[in-house]
Amino acid sequence: MQFVNIIEKKADGLELTEEEIRYMITGYTAGDIPDYQMASMCMAILQRGMTAREATDLTLAMMHSGDVVDLSDLPGVKLDKHSTGGVGDTTTLVVAPLVAACGGTVAKMSGRGLGHTGGTLDKLESIPGTKVEIPMERFREIVRENGVSVIGQSANLVPADKKMYALRDVTATVRSIPLIASSIMSKKLASGADVIMLDVKTGSGAFMRTVDEAKQLAELMVSIGTRSGRKVRAAITDMNQPLGMSVGNALEVQEAVELLSGQIPETDPLYEVCMILGSSMLELARLAENEADARRMLKEKIQNGEGLARLRKMIELQGGDASYLTPERMNELVAVKRHVPVCADRDGYVVSMMAEEIGETARLLGAGRLKKEDPIDPAVGLVMKVRCGAKVSTGDSLAVLYVNDETNLEEAIRLLKASIRIEPEYHKPNPMVYGVIG
Amino acid sequence: MQFVNIIEKKADGLELTEEEIRYMITGYTAGDIPDYQMASMCMAILQRGMTAREATDLTLAMMHSGDVVDLSDLPGVKLDKHSTGGVGDTTTLVVAPLVAACGGTVAKMSGRGLGHTGGTLDKLESIPGTKVEIPMERFREIVRENGVSVIGQSANLVPADKKMYALRDVTATVRSIPLIASSIMSKKLASGADVIMLDVKTGSGAFMRTVDEAKQLAELMVSIGTRSGRKVRAAITDMNQPLGMSVGNALEVQEAVELLSGQIPETDPLYEVCMILGSSMLELARLAENEADARRMLKEKIQNGEGLARLRKMIELQGGDASYLTPERMNELVAVKRHVPVCADRDGYVVSMMAEEIGETARLLGAGRLKKEDPIDPAVGLVMKVRCGAKVSTGDSLAVLYVNDETNLEEAIRLLKASIRIEPEYHKPNPMVYGVIG
Repeated sequence: MQFVNIIEKKADGLELTEEEIRYMITGYTAGDIPDYQMASMCMAILQRGMTAREATDLTLAMMHSGDVVDLSDLPGVKLDKHSTGGVGDTTTLVVAPLVAACGGTVAKMSGRGLGHTGGTLDKLESIPGTKVEIPMERFREIVRENGVSVIGQSANLVPADKKMYALRDVTATVRSIPLIASSIMSKKLASGADVIMLDVKTGSGAFMRTVDEAKQLAELMVSIGTRSGRKVRAAITDMNQPLGMSVGNALEVQEAVELLSGQIPETDPLYEVCMILGSSMLELARLAENEADARRMLKEKIQNGEGLARLRKMIELQGGDASYLTPERMNELVAVKRHVPVCADRDGYVVSMMAEEIGETARLLGAGRLKKEDPIDPAVGLVMKVRCGAKVSTGDSLAVLYVNDETNLEEAIRLLKASIRIEPEYHKPNPMVYGVIG
Repeated sequence: MQFVNIIEKKADGLELTEEEIRYMITGYTAGDIPDYQMASMCMAILQRGMTAREATDLTLAMMHSGDVVDLSDLPGVKLDKHSTGGVGDTTTLVVAPLVAACGGTVAKMSGRGLGHTGGTLDKLESIPGTKVEIPMERFREIVRENGVSVIGQSANLVPADKKMYALRDVTATVRSIPLIASSIMSKKLASGADVIMLDVKTGSGAFMRTVDEAKQLAELMVSIGTRSGRKVRAAITDMNQPLGMSVGNALEVQEAVELLSGQIPETDPLYEVCMILGSSMLELARLAENEADARRMLKEKIQNGEGLARLRKMIELQGGDASYLTPERMNELVAVKRHVPVCADRDGYVVSMMAEEIGETARLLGAGRLKKEDPIDPAVGLVMKVRCGAKVSTGDSLAVLYVNDETNLEEAIRLLKASIRIEPEYHKPNPMVYGVIG
């Protein structure tokens, strides 16, 4: 088999065989296929696409390039969730403990934030003492005891993806839907869950800018997961504005704790998206009869505090100080030198809040990183005071910045102002959920 | 300027600016742009194409990556020709001396054969003593004295093309029409001629398999040349069967000498293609009033032996023994251990002769090379006895193999037999010329 002939086949728009795809991934991971050939192949895939069958074979080949976690010795149905990356998206910290409280087993491996999107690991680490690099055996013990644990991905999880992603990043081939789908799904499959709930974000703050693109990605990922013997569903949710009101690490933990404490109304978008994700997980795992049943269960675990108890226990078992996990005590973790309000400079209605720019504002204040090595400040970020559709008057606070280091403050204020558009006419905001696939 | 953004632009099907294209070629030639980025770009170009303006900018950027030959001090109009590579295509050895005899200045830099196609340099070297690696100053002297010289390309002619071609070869991006056009035209422009006549081959033995592809390539090359201030025309000619009857180095020189000696009839395809190329060159250089005038001039130079005299003088000035250049003395250079006839095994009509396989047959006998370093045997090859459309009876000789080394003889015979199809019904053969562009 000559790899140049396999590239040519894809360049001509033909379907690759399972053997050819396996040859590509094992060869590239081993260093037998050079970067320049893989770069050409990635561009051919970007241009010509892949069938669901090809994308599944690619996902499985990538999955088998490294460690594959076997969770079969753990009790019950193992559930996982994944978000394609959003701003103010703290659903994992809400849904994972709630689903565990409902009888699910959530052994989740998560990633760090990069660019304008936050990462669950960084949020967990904002709680003093919390460890996310935990040996696999201890992770299993925690899950066995508490039903839920969230840790960092093992270093050897899908090495093919690490190598391919670094290459795609510099060869303008990141945006290929089959390559995105196989990158995500290879890690999900390798993580060992039976049920995988996907949250595909769409809009100005998401990688998938249009609902149509998000739908394509969601359909392909559901197809890959189902063909691989897992139960998979995908919700397509809005990222034209941040999901929650808080953007920042401890700030988002605080919002999650508030939600789990019953302090956030059911009409809130973060609450609603958590319900959609959580109820789908319970349905897929047959822990609930139907959606209404699932929602009732989740709501009960908020009201009786069992969800929050699971999160507190998880933090404790991962070495953290769980006593911070009340809405009030969390104030200590979001204490900063200055609160800087950003106010409306005209009367009107909020017609758009660019999520990417708002995430970038938080990053400028130190809440996120541009490069993997950048340090982050867990306390800083911003809390929005309005959402799209809100009526505002001149001088009303649109958001409050939580600031320690003022180096980029002026730029952050400018960026945040530019990202919130106020117009005289009311525009109906985008829905929070565009559909569920699978 | 970030190269990844330029790749992305092309991946989206957008037109690149002249500045972006220049950045790409200077960066790649200097080693600042790595192979993997260039590979991705080449695949994007293969998939998305280039406008004539982009291809011209690419050609000029490549041309300026190395030496640019200035022929302006030589007298008269400087003419060049180029064939995209065929089998039994010995037109240069006929047309170059004839055009010189008609008053043109032919200072031609040529390439070596690779794979199933022959190279003019290898053919010249089959004449004992002939040198093709000649210093530029001596080359100019020969052209000044004789009106024609054919030598090897200088080592630093379009280094960008050498680097890009090596990369394209292993990344399945060879077949991009704008990349082929810029590769050919950058070398032609750098070689300094005012008039460039292109022979774009199409058919089973050519790189352009369909007439439509050949037409696209021809149109683009003519456009690039014209936009760059040269006079360019392209003939689209058939390579569904070899052009001449001989395939092999000295064998093709012998056929050229026969043509220049008036021993090949005007109805012969090699004769006709030489007339088309030569008359176009004379017209473009305004050395002839019109095509009829040009053909009359060329025919005269065959009949009075002035064409052959130019070729002999050229060989002599390049250190070769010109006394071989008669049809009879050439027999000494094509003397081999064995002549092996390949005969028809049924009655019928020759309906196809796969030129690529016939070229490959000659290569198997030692007439060509797979790798640059492979030695070649100047005497070996084959002479066809029939052309497409010929009526044959069982036992008739289809071709005669000229053999020294019998290592691959059985395979050569098998391949040649498989490449000549005989059927009971007559099929009208393809025309030798499909059109002229420019």
